[in-house]
Amino acid sequence: MTVLREVKALLPHEHIIYFGDTARVPYGNKSPQMVTKYALESALFLLTKGIKLLIIACNTSSAFALQILQKKMPVPVIGVIAPGAKEAARNTTSNKVAVIGTRTTVKSMAYDRSIKRLSPGIEVFSRACPLFVPIVEEGLEHDEIARLTAEKYLGDLRGSGIDVIVMGCTHYPVLEDVIRQTMGNRIKIVHSGKETAKEAWTILNERNLLNRRGRGKREYFVTDTPESFHEIGGRILGEALTHVKSLKSLDYQDLLFSS
Amino acid sequence: MTVLREVKALLPHEHIIYFGDTARVPYGNKSPQMVTKYALESALFLLTKGIKLLIIACNTSSAFALQILQKKMPVPVIGVIAPGAKEAARNTTSNKVAVIGTRTTVKSMAYDRSIKRLSPGIEVFSRACPLFVPIVEEGLEHDEIARLTAEKYLGDLRGSGIDVIVMGCTHYPVLEDVIRQTMGNRIKIVHSGKETAKEAWTILNERNLLNRRGRGKREYFVTDTPESFHEIGGRILGEALTHVKSLKSLDYQDLLFSS
Repeated sequence: MTVLREVKALLPHEHIIYFGDTARVPYGNKSPQMVTKYALESALFLLTKGIKLLIIACNTSSAFALQILQKKMPVPVIGVIAPGAKEAARNTTSNKVAVIGTRTTVKSMAYDRSIKRLSPGIEVFSRACPLFVPIVEEGLEHDEIARLTAEKYLGDLRGSGIDVIVMGCTHYPVLEDVIRQTMGNRIKIVHSGKETAKEAWTILNERNLLNRRGRGKREYFVTDTPESFHEIGGRILGEALTHVKSLKSLDYQDLLFSS
Repeated sequence: MTVLREVKALLPHEHIIYFGDTARVPYGNKSPQMVTKYALESALFLLTKGIKLLIIACNTSSAFALQILQKKMPVPVIGVIAPGAKEAARNTTSNKVAVIGTRTTVKSMAYDRSIKRLSPGIEVFSRACPLFVPIVEEGLEHDEIARLTAEKYLGDLRGSGIDVIVMGCTHYPVLEDVIRQTMGNRIKIVHSGKETAKEAWTILNERNLLNRRGRGKREYFVTDTPESFHEIGGRILGEALTHVKSLKSLDYQDLLFSS
């Protein structure tokens, strides 16, 4: 949803089809194998909708499924990690970057590798922050619980010379205020979703696939019933979600025959 | 796992087959429809293992799937809600009982109905505590975050005359200390899993199905890879888990052909 918000802002003329695997999230504590399987199923579903570009709008999925999806999909596929890593490498002057994400994303070392490929001298400090996702989903981002949790995860990074922190989970932009309070005002916060939206624009523009007029439509598909998706999605996007459809499952029949 | 701990203690001679849907948990924020579907699939799997009794060791699943499973399964099926409700009704003298659980369990009103069926005069105070599950899974039960979260959810119940609180989620027994600190020492804490184990003993005894000698074997099946299950399960049971098998999915082929 935080990625969608940026994509909508930067690509207002595009028709956006959003797929949320609400029956099986969160992915952040699941195994690489399971995350890859779920990402493939989700991508196949979106492919049946005639997409021209696929954004993996989840760091955990990007960490594991980007390569296989780039190999298997007939359309360009971008993840959120490379764009965030690039922005981090471009902005650090101390050459010390923090990356925060789910347990599975941090374990993958995907940001570390991506940042060091761009600039081997950068030191990367990674921290898994597993409580951040439920705090965001419960709307507790301004609660004392969020402050205490941020302090627990990030307090020891203060004063270590880090000048850039990458929000390596698409839930975390909701926590930007508390992350800034914890890390200090001078930290540069990289929002991978924002960078990913720019990357999408660049790719579509290069290939001459950009819609330049008209109001883009939005369609939402979820795997659980739509109630709580309406609530959380509306809160993050700041507008009521219409056209939300609920899929019964990711069976191939559903994939191919759902309207 | 907290239910298993009690069942193992009370029924040491039984062969216990544990099924954990680790690829799709947590259930607590998912819809009733999805929870019912997942419970049915899990029960079918266990049925292929030749079980003589099925315990739905999850409050959210018990709230929605108990009736359909009792109807569809050829073996006795017990959930964790009725045993917990009975113990609560039996212990309150103020006739004021608190029930805490996931969002979906609390919304179901299953404890309210079950307690009022036994004793219509009891007033039931329900509170959804969605952050408790991730706090337990992160091993933060003795952290200040747990205390602050318990205070947020339960603080306003102190001094309301409540003398019994039901832990209506199988994760919560891990938080018993902090719940007691928050609610005061005089509160009676009902552990639904403990009551469910007694119920299982009673049913097996009545039907003359109780194993009375030999050391029961344990088998564990999970739907995700076993790594984090080993970690969390070992922590709660206080012993290393052996014989953990990972199912690739709940496809019927897997159900019928898995060894």
